[in-house]
Amino acid sequence: MEKRVKNIFNKLEKKPEVIIIKNSAEPFIDDNFFYVTGLEKGLFEGSVAFLFPYGNIDIIVSELEAEAAKKSDVNVKVYKNEEDLISIMKDSISSSRTIGLNFHGISHREYCKLKNRFPGSDFFDVSDSFAKTRLVKDESEIELIKKACGITDKVMEKIPQILHEDMYEFELAAEIDYLMQKNGADKSAFDTISSFGKNTSQPHYSHGATPLKYGDFVLCDFGACFKKYNSDITRTFVFGKASNEQKDMYETVQEAQRIGFDMVKPGLKAYEVHNAVNSFIEGTQFKGRFIHSTGHSLGLSVHDRGARFSNICEVELKENMVFTIEPGVYIPGFGGVRIEDDVLIKKDGVELLTKTPREIIEI
Amino acid sequence: MEKRVKNIFNKLEKKPEVIIIKNSAEPFIDDNFFYVTGLEKGLFEGSVAFLFPYGNIDIIVSELEAEAAKKSDVNVKVYKNEEDLISIMKDSISSSRTIGLNFHGISHREYCKLKNRFPGSDFFDVSDSFAKTRLVKDESEIELIKKACGITDKVMEKIPQILHEDMYEFELAAEIDYLMQKNGADKSAFDTISSFGKNTSQPHYSHGATPLKYGDFVLCDFGACFKKYNSDITRTFVFGKASNEQKDMYETVQEAQRIGFDMVKPGLKAYEVHNAVNSFIEGTQFKGRFIHSTGHSLGLSVHDRGARFSNICEVELKENMVFTIEPGVYIPGFGGVRIEDDVLIKKDGVELLTKTPREIIEI
Repeated sequence: MEKRVKNIFNKLEKKPEVIIIKNSAEPFIDDNFFYVTGLEKGLFEGSVAFLFPYGNIDIIVSELEAEAAKKSDVNVKVYKNEEDLISIMKDSISSSRTIGLNFHGISHREYCKLKNRFPGSDFFDVSDSFAKTRLVKDESEIELIKKACGITDKVMEKIPQILHEDMYEFELAAEIDYLMQKNGADKSAFDTISSFGKNTSQPHYSHGATPLKYGDFVLCDFGACFKKYNSDITRTFVFGKASNEQKDMYETVQEAQRIGFDMVKPGLKAYEVHNAVNSFIEGTQFKGRFIHSTGHSLGLSVHDRGARFSNICEVELKENMVFTIEPGVYIPGFGGVRIEDDVLIKKDGVELLTKTPREIIEI
Repeated sequence: MEKRVKNIFNKLEKKPEVIIIKNSAEPFIDDNFFYVTGLEKGLFEGSVAFLFPYGNIDIIVSELEAEAAKKSDVNVKVYKNEEDLISIMKDSISSSRTIGLNFHGISHREYCKLKNRFPGSDFFDVSDSFAKTRLVKDESEIELIKKACGITDKVMEKIPQILHEDMYEFELAAEIDYLMQKNGADKSAFDTISSFGKNTSQPHYSHGATPLKYGDFVLCDFGACFKKYNSDITRTFVFGKASNEQKDMYETVQEAQRIGFDMVKPGLKAYEVHNAVNSFIEGTQFKGRFIHSTGHSLGLSVHDRGARFSNICEVELKENMVFTIEPGVYIPGFGGVRIEDDVLIKKDGVELLTKTPREIIEI
């Protein structure tokens, strides 16, 4: 993990004497805490990490996390109460006058508390360096993402057999989440989306009590979280025989995704991928129906900051970045199709990390 | 929801012209967004809510959330991109010079962006007012919490039949999460804790690949999330016949919890509850083994801010507050016992919302 911390410092023009990560209560936990410690389990509410330019790391955790923290090879200090925490913090960074923070990962309240405790210090934002460093995955990260992808593949292939008429959306979500855990996921990477029929036209739909009917689209978007790393996959099935319009939608999205797969490689700018995929859809009868970006960086966070395949992202693609490629078309009142896979950028193109077939499946 | 917003303003000494809730990307979502809109589903990343002193609410959401937002009876505006969002925000609060924010629920980055966009405005923290208002639940909130508690009861009663020798902790967690969703939970309220044997001595343990053995403690701590509201329950079983030490631990915790149930009522200070429960344990052979607070407010967030049964919380208990009561004793290397239930404070005492029996169960 020393190397990760050094990378974070190396990417900074203005280098602080120390970088502080300060978790608040759930859900305000900065996942960079896990990035720099390598801890795979535990909640770490209220925990603090200090990162120093030579790559060394101190963490301060409450008694509740003391056992879990020992799994890391960083220096661990345990606090009993707030007063204790402040005193340990003051000891650790007493002489530091420049302090880096991840402004995206700290609540404004925690920021104010730090400002008050270290009134003479200069605090500044180092979030971009975290994001940039995390964009390019190291070997152990890729291994964990591959494990997470393997779990989702196993689950996705079982879905066609699970579906039956009048099944509710929430029942399918329950089965998906269960299968993920049975196959080794620590938990679902995010709230599983399972939508039927016209509900599939809402990209962020939450499952409800809609029953499955013949002819419905079935859209499943889920991921596995394995030792804090995530996968993210979507397939759209047809429950019954696909109508011509359903087939057209599906084939358009499939072709759009293929365009993405084919072009992604080191050296390209992220927006070029989105623009190519989007232009293709804009040239079809589904013009205007692709209403989100083409993909996002994936890792410790499902939507890893730092880059996405959107029309404004100028990030240059590099080897060992991991992205989703997930075009979709959505027709309110009718339904939507999205196909999403996870890819690892290699020297000459992409390696598909999710391997579930992408052909239309009529059930 | 108008009433909720009015309550938030009423509790403020310094009243702003508008209160802004600004969600960032997951997990930095302020659950007050759901409190004031009543929305039961959806993610609402990047969404904004404006609360005005007369109780009216405007929300601005991205196209991805437009459908979901319609479920609310507040004013909904939809933005297409960041520029659009800024212009809608400026229209909505152009003349406001005093702006309230929940400093606990906004990332420092979002705070800085708001400061830049509205440079002439005075921003100040209104988080305590949110926390205080949310402490006392209204009728519809109590109904949802009761539903969530009912689901956990149903699941907990099935656990003794599920357990079998050599079952792994993660398998039990998978079964628990599955049963919750099958029984109507939208999802688990938090990462389910299922620990066996000596792992039960870690209050924040995450499940792993430890197999269940005869004589083990089995600790299950989980909750159901139902339409954004949560329950939170813990039971500790003995897989086999309890040893004398296990029985002593169990009975101590059971008695400690009974003390909590008996004393909680309006008018008391929160710390009095913790001190009584803690003093009792300190007077037993398990002195020093109770290492967390006795409980926390429960609602839209599992650990609702604003009050907990800890030794420093001076909040006065009131009717319609909902708390967990969850004493525990933990002996590293041996195991731990925690018993946790959710209670609603009534005029003369508490109503138990979780109804699973608390007697020791030997399986």
